[in-house]
Parts: sequence; C-alpha cells; structure tokens
Amino acid sequence: MTYEDFVIGSTHPFGAHRFTAEEIRRFALAYDPQPFHLDEAAAKASPFGAICASGWHTASVMMGLLTRYFVRTSERARLEGRTVSPLGPSPGFDDLKWLRAVYPGDTIEFTGRVASKRDTESRPAWGLVSVETTGINQKGETVFVITGHVFVAKRHPAA
Amino acid sequence: MTYEDFVIGSTHPFGAHRFTAEEIRRFALAYDPQPFHLDEAAAKASPFGAICASGWHTASVMMGLLTRYFVRTSERARLEGRTVSPLGPSPGFDDLKWLRAVYPGDTIEFTGRVASKRDTESRPAWGLVSVETTGINQKGETVFVITGHVFVAKRHPAA
Repeated sequence: MTYEDFVIGSTHPFGAHRFTAEEIRRFALAYDPQPFHLDEAAAKASPFGAICASGWHTASVMMGLLTRYFVRTSERARLEGRTVSPLGPSPGFDDLKWLRAVYPGDTIEFTGRVASKRDTESRPAWGLVSVETTGINQKGETVFVITGHVFVAKRHPAA
Repeated sequence: MTYEDFVIGSTHPFGAHRFTAEEIRRFALAYDPQPFHLDEAAAKASPFGAICASGWHTASVMMGLLTRYFVRTSERARLEGRTVSPLGPSPGFDDLKWLRAVYPGDTIEFTGRVASKRDTESRPAWGLVSVETTGINQKGETVFVITGHVFVAKRHPAA
C-alpha cells in the first residue's frame, strides 16, 4: 500500500458502525451539546424529530473505520511482501454533506472511492489521494458524503 | 438570537481550548488510531515530528466551543427579553483546512466570522448562515479553517 497502489475509481468498504444512544450522548456531551443531541423533548420539537447523532460524531466514526481499514489492508500487503507506507498528513476536506440525521440504532456503512490522485510541489516524496466517502444507513439512504485528501508516501519518489 | 441577529462580517469569540496529551490519546483511540496520534516513536518518524491531535478532534472541539458560545449568547438575549431561536440542522461544510498540527499543550482559540446569509426554498422559516471559523494557536499561527453552514430560525418568517 503505497501511493502507486491507489487506483482511481476503485471502491473500498471501510466498514459499518451501529450508533447507540449511549455513544451519541457521550459524544454530544463532550463536543456538540445541542439540545437535539441530548434532550428527547427538545429533539422532538426540532426538525430532526428525535435525538440524533452529532454530525461530527458521524464524521469521526467514518475516520475511525477508514483508519482501521487502511491498517488491515496494509497488514495484508505486508504479508504479501509488498511495500507499505503509512498514511501521511491530510490537508483537509471539501464538501462535507450531512444529508440525513443518524438516529440511535442506525447502522451506517461507509465506502470510499478514489476520486483523483496528484503530485504536489510541496511534498515530492508523497502523492495526494482524494477519496469520496459515502455513508449509507440500513434503509439504503445516503446520510453522509465527504471528499477528503490525504498524502500517501510513494514507493518510487523519483517517478 | 434569531436569523436576523446574525450580522455579516461580525466576529464571534467561541473560546479557547488547551489540548492535553490524555484527551488527544483518548480521541485518537476511539476515532483516529493512526500511529502519529498514539505512538511517540512513530510520530517522531512522521512528517508531524511528535504526537499530535486528530484533525477530527480539533474540529469536534471547535464545535463544542461554538455550541457553548451560542448557548451563552442566547441566554444573554433571553435575559434582555429578545426572541431566541435554537440552532437548526447543518447541511455541512466546505473547505476544511488543517494547516498545522495541534500538539499536546497547545491552546487553540477559535473565532467565527459571519461570511454570508441566505434564504432557501427548502426551509422558508429558517435562514442559512455561513460562518468562517479560524483556530489560532498560542504562537499566533492559524492551524484550522472551516466554512460551516447552519440553519437558524427566523423571527419573522414572512420577511
């Protein structure tokens, strides 16, 4: 798993996560204490209709699954004797969309698609991979979309 | 604090947060277990040079400070007898940039600037406020920038 191994258009099943009421509450208390994430009556009166997860919670869960997927994939590559690079810094993200609320009990499946790859002047030993990741709930509804960018070390920096 | 109270160009001090080694580790274990967030030797060998916070941790802390700032501001408005609206759903954000790493002991100060406001067809009782938020560390370096969008209820939905 080096920059060269990321194939444009390839899809990657990062994995699924079931959001429990307890973890929705714990994340919201720490990082997003809006009433509709914590209080049943306030949530009922809000556009969401019921307590739902912080959008930052959904994004963080996506990151956790992406990271673990990359670790698994790298481990397989290592066993096959291929060169393995760690993920590098991420300069940021574009176009994060929270399309639908995530409610307690929802299971969200995240899939990444390599959207583009490019060399950059600032880090010649690395390549920048752009991945469009989608989160889909158990009803098949898309709840989350993001395009992220991450540097991955090259096997052949000269190439 | 209703849609009408958000003034384009106004700035809002959401507050500051000091990132401890312990919370950087806790967040990374749950949501971003990359070696440079957890392991000193791996971090030293990485482009970051030392353990640093997950970018999603920085973003989540920003959200917590923003939420608490909005609660304080609303409470003051309530005491002054003004109409107060809860924040509504956020459709997402654009252009999140992690410009520099956040290390243990760093204090990041987040400030929001109302960049634009608009009516939308989908939610006539609400207005969409776009806020550009910047995170600056104790050395005055910008570490984080994001433009977020959030619906806020109108005082006069007819207007």
